[in-house]
Amino acid sequence: MKTMDELFHALLQDVYYAEKQLTKALPKMAKEADNAKLKKAFTDHLKETEGHVERLEKAFAMIEKPARGKKCDAILGIIAEGKEVIDEADDDQVLDAGLTASGQAAEHYEIARYGTLCAWAKLIGKPQIARLLHETLEEEKHADQLLTQIAEERVNQQALSA
Amino acid sequence: MKTMDELFHALLQDVYYAEKQLTKALPKMAKEADNAKLKKAFTDHLKETEGHVERLEKAFAMIEKPARGKKCDAILGIIAEGKEVIDEADDDQVLDAGLTASGQAAEHYEIARYGTLCAWAKLIGKPQIARLLHETLEEEKHADQLLTQIAEERVNQQALSA
Repeated sequence: MKTMDELFHALLQDVYYAEKQLTKALPKMAKEADNAKLKKAFTDHLKETEGHVERLEKAFAMIEKPARGKKCDAILGIIAEGKEVIDEADDDQVLDAGLTASGQAAEHYEIARYGTLCAWAKLIGKPQIARLLHETLEEEKHADQLLTQIAEERVNQQALSA
Repeated sequence: MKTMDELFHALLQDVYYAEKQLTKALPKMAKEADNAKLKKAFTDHLKETEGHVERLEKAFAMIEKPARGKKCDAILGIIAEGKEVIDEADDDQVLDAGLTASGQAAEHYEIARYGTLCAWAKLIGKPQIARLLHETLEEEKHADQLLTQIAEERVNQQALSA
């Protein structure tokens, strides 16, 4: 990891691994979620995530490298925390709150990484990759905003029923 | 981790651990950074981070729990990736780019977690904790914006010199 090109390639592999992990985690999160909006948010985001994997594969092709993941401990930690909630919560409110939080932690990891990938793609003279991954960045931000909205509705409902 | 109170407490421990880790990582990141603005951003954020630790300690006191961390694999993964860059980069541009990226991944982890802590503090009837941690959330967002700005300046400088 000595040149910007190598740094970009390594981060692309990190994010590819993370997205692949999320395509496995999201169906479980959708299945476990109690709130219908939350369930739909995870199901919809799974479809988007499959699109993100495809965009990354295009980016690999554009730098003439095979699409290959590299273990990313950050996303594994985030997913493991989400799994802990599913296993230990015995109340729907707690379960949904924990799932929403895990979803947002994953989104923010990706927002940070896609922001960096876009900046680095420009640095290494690949503006077309920056444009491609910027589409994903916007979808990740939107997914995070939707989860924030769902979390706020939960707070407001509780305030009304208190 | 069965009730919302327990979930809130567990996340408080997770974030406390993360902030403590960052108070150790940030001085190293500031020392290694080549760009003066980046160095200053890390040094300034270290001071803020010490304040975040204190706010978390107040939050623990407000729920009558001892201030204690709980291992957070996500932040360890993010810090480990940053360390890898410091060890392997032999060019100042690559080093600074990697350090900026690690800083932003850490900020986004915290943005996600403080957002959740604020929502959950309201859910468990502790709006004063939500207000306290909201101050930290704003500082984390600001720190991330500053790093984005530094990354963009790098892209623009390169474009000018190309």
